[in-house]
Amino acid sequence: MTPTTEPRICRTFQTAPAAVPREESAKYLVSGLASEGFEAPDWLVPDLEDGTAPDAKAEGLENVLAEVPRADFAGEIWPRVEWSYADRPYREKGRHQIDRLVGEIGDEIDGVVVPKVGRLEDVERAAAVVAEAEASHGYDEGAIELAVIVETGRARSDLREIARFGENSRLAALVFGPVDYTAELGGRDLGDGRPRWDGLLEALSNEASAADLLAIGGPFDDLFTERAGLTYYNAEGYADQIEHEARLGLDGSWSLHPKQTIQANTIHTPTPAELERDVDRIERFNEAKREGTGAVTIDGQMVDEATFKVFRNTILTVRAIHRTRSEQTADYYDEALLDRALELELRYDE
Amino acid sequence: MTPTTEPRICRTFQTAPAAVPREESAKYLVSGLASEGFEAPDWLVPDLEDGTAPDAKAEGLENVLAEVPRADFAGEIWPRVEWSYADRPYREKGRHQIDRLVGEIGDEIDGVVVPKVGRLEDVERAAAVVAEAEASHGYDEGAIELAVIVETGRARSDLREIARFGENSRLAALVFGPVDYTAELGGRDLGDGRPRWDGLLEALSNEASAADLLAIGGPFDDLFTERAGLTYYNAEGYADQIEHEARLGLDGSWSLHPKQTIQANTIHTPTPAELERDVDRIERFNEAKREGTGAVTIDGQMVDEATFKVFRNTILTVRAIHRTRSEQTADYYDEALLDRALELELRYDE
Amino acid sequence: MTPTTEPRICRTFQTAPAAVPREESAKYLVSGLASEGFEAPDWLVPDLEDGTAPDAKAEGLENVLAEVPRADFAGEIWPRVEWSYADRPYREKGRHQIDRLVGEIGDEIDGVVVPKVGRLEDVERAAAVVAEAEASHGYDEGAIELAVIVETGRARSDLREIARFGENSRLAALVFGPVDYTAELGGRDLGDGRPRWDGLLEALSNEASAADLLAIGGPFDDLFTERAGLTYYNAEGYADQIEHEARLGLDGSWSLHPKQTIQANTIHTPTPAELERDVDRIERFNEAKREGTGAVTIDGQMVDEATFKVFRNTILTVRAIHRTRSEQTADYYDEALLDRALELELRYDE
Repeated sequence: MTPTTEPRICRTFQTAPAAVPREESAKYLVSGLASEGFEAPDWLVPDLEDGTAPDAKAEGLENVLAEVPRADFAGEIWPRVEWSYADRPYREKGRHQIDRLVGEIGDEIDGVVVPKVGRLEDVERAAAVVAEAEASHGYDEGAIELAVIVETGRARSDLREIARFGENSRLAALVFGPVDYTAELGGRDLGDGRPRWDGLLEALSNEASAADLLAIGGPFDDLFTERAGLTYYNAEGYADQIEHEARLGLDGSWSLHPKQTIQANTIHTPTPAELERDVDRIERFNEAKREGTGAVTIDGQMVDEATFKVFRNTILTVRAIHRTRSEQTADYYDEALLDRALELELRYDE
Repeated sequence: MTPTTEPRICRTFQTAPAAVPREESAKYLVSGLASEGFEAPDWLVPDLEDGTAPDAKAEGLENVLAEVPRADFAGEIWPRVEWSYADRPYREKGRHQIDRLVGEIGDEIDGVVVPKVGRLEDVERAAAVVAEAEASHGYDEGAIELAVIVETGRARSDLREIARFGENSRLAALVFGPVDYTAELGGRDLGDGRPRWDGLLEALSNEASAADLLAIGGPFDDLFTERAGLTYYNAEGYADQIEHEARLGLDGSWSLHPKQTIQANTIHTPTPAELERDVDRIERFNEAKREGTGAVTIDGQMVDEATFKVFRNTILTVRAIHRTRSEQTADYYDEALLDRALELELRYDE
Repeated sequence: MTPTTEPRICRTFQTAPAAVPREESAKYLVSGLASEGFEAPDWLVPDLEDGTAPDAKAEGLENVLAEVPRADFAGEIWPRVEWSYADRPYREKGRHQIDRLVGEIGDEIDGVVVPKVGRLEDVERAAAVVAEAEASHGYDEGAIELAVIVETGRARSDLREIARFGENSRLAALVFGPVDYTAELGGRDLGDGRPRWDGLLEALSNEASAADLLAIGGPFDDLFTERAGLTYYNAEGYADQIEHEARLGLDGSWSLHPKQTIQANTIHTPTPAELERDVDRIERFNEAKREGTGAVTIDGQMVDEATFKVFRNTILTVRAIHRTRSEQTADYYDEALLDRALELELRYDE
């Protein structure tokens, strides 16, 4: 009755500028596509929007069209295009970028990320642009998915309606964009940074969950910090944000750097102790079912279907990670434990 | 113009398992029904859902049908049945339980508590099941009320619409269910427990208030705590949660244990100092009105109708508690003060 | 393409009782109207509602009608009238007050502030009362604007719908009213004051932003504090609240006292350092555009239209303040800097 299919995973949503002012302008895009181990994100997002300078956009698009097919990336590829609910020229640029991406590398990409969307109508407009590109290049309806960045007052106001639109459409993920959001609301930085926007994060997690979409947190830009003369990677600050997002039930986090990807992948992966505990519980549950003793008690608790689902979700998540990133699961879990997780019978009813 | 009727009270929503694996399987149900003094909850909730093991549900239902009529419980009785927006078999179990409860002890119960509801349509479906039982057993429309547990992303998403449905229906209370809610959203416990879900609590208090429903907090399961080798009742942790709920304007709190009931009853009851203060203010207001001096100033503040309502609400709440739980008011307040509160004229206009 | 018009400002929403029990009953109203420098609020709100005692309302109305035309107040004038979604007599008083204000000093006031509104329908009803007064006294449609105080569960429940009504109507501002709001929800003061209602504040800032309305915080009533025998103005407590509101992107704050007005005006005004930084950035941007080097990099960041808008907003805000309160800008900024800000070319496209 309850699905035993693996969940879609996006522990990490790593953006990579499509072009940078270096000799090799595709440098970061290429290194993202070649990333390995825990540095490999679940979703790589070649960024044609704010990560690429205005005069490098054209070159950025060519880089994406050239490099993505050349790489052998095990995760999903989601280019971010230009867009703005407020300005038609930006939407026209986005339409052009989407058309070329779908037309030339439609088989290689999973969807497109559309930023600065406004109310529901604007999200529907973005979805229609993708549908148009899909149809004109001979793809099946829904082959190219859509993720939107929630970073305007209008998108936040319509969040529930936008998520419900995702129940039966190509919309697959809601991503938070705190920088533009704070600017649009006129939030002042009085020396201690932006608000965390906890109300919005709770709503993002809830609406995504209620509509079976993915919810992804926003970027953390204090990549480096300084103390006593030394500048170093801000592992502490980033982990604090990602743990907060994980507690609230966001499915994944934004990464701007391979080190952030290591941390977000790790935090959003069940720990070895969690996996051990839940494998063990399900093995005991299955054993009790075989013995036919009726209701099953585990750790002093009767196991009903809802409890069972929580245990099972740990296993299904690990299997989903294993399918695309087996070097991560091999590195993180004891081999015998991983084998038990992969072989486990996961049906509640016999 | 403004109502002077006593508010409906549910300071405590105490669940009691309908059957436990003991010789006397109705043990906790029976002791809840026989509770006295501050240990007596306003609402007793015989629990046929998560509090009773799957193989004890049938016995649990018989226990409720047998014990409730036998007891002389002064508060309200609200059995919690099985349900799930996601699974029809659970809804069928709920339908059967509701039918038997209404058919056999419909005069003894005030309503039923339906857990794991989804969007508005699912709440309407639950209400229709109650209506059907009511009609088929000859009760008046609305005789059996409904409370729902808000513990899914869908119910949170539709909270405003669900509450508005309660404006003109049998729906009387919204109760928070943090354990299932956190599991459904995929919130991770990273060693420091669940989020408090403050956005949801604010919305629950607001929507209940806007639709004249009761809002009740969720269970606190760290019943016992340990320090320096001693395990003891966690009075501190529970009181912190209940005080937080009281500040946000929730009407009552969930209790799992008679000690929790004592604490929640106490926190949700006006203190003797509050009662003294507001009795005194209204006596002075009434005196000034009799003297006809026009506008009345009390404690340096002009008393308009809105201010007066706030004072009066204290008195009305105490009267409501007194009507069902006079042993609590007798115990908590000085006799002379209580008499003044019971005799006070509470009309703003003369 | 993007507007270069100055934003409407309401850094301070200062209420002044329309009549107080003193020899000169218009004392505070008159001093508010005569305020100077940083003590002068952007909006002065002659208060016919809770700030004026029931038996002084009639005199208060005459004070407003007499004193407002006599003064030469550079900001906006927004009388607060009586109203209640729950009680018709209060709405009738409000209708009468609005009719007299529009009929007698309609040229002198910018709008009216309506408190205790309920759901959208009640806000529409308040707007209709203003429209009626406007029409019957020969004013153009929309000449008299509307601000509402969000202080009931119903208004909070309908906040998104109320804000959207403001997209195409005379509704111009949403103001928070925490005292009545907390009372309506039944929030208990357990000795540490009211909740801050952060979920509501986030939503107020967001919905106002999404509908191009102003969002204003609620009053801070701990005007004075005591320590070690001395009672003094609570500058610390008020600044904490106003900074919190500024971070969340509220446009302005409620003031009950000239000292609060100084603080709120200051916090909601770009600092000299912010102005210097953004004037400098735009000067460099304009210089680069003249040299025609294509994309412009400032402080290591490519400047696109969205970035440019953020810089420009600082300048436009300062110009708006300067237009009505030049004594504040002259006092706060270096003369040369202010001149640069006033002369700057602010178009993104050449």
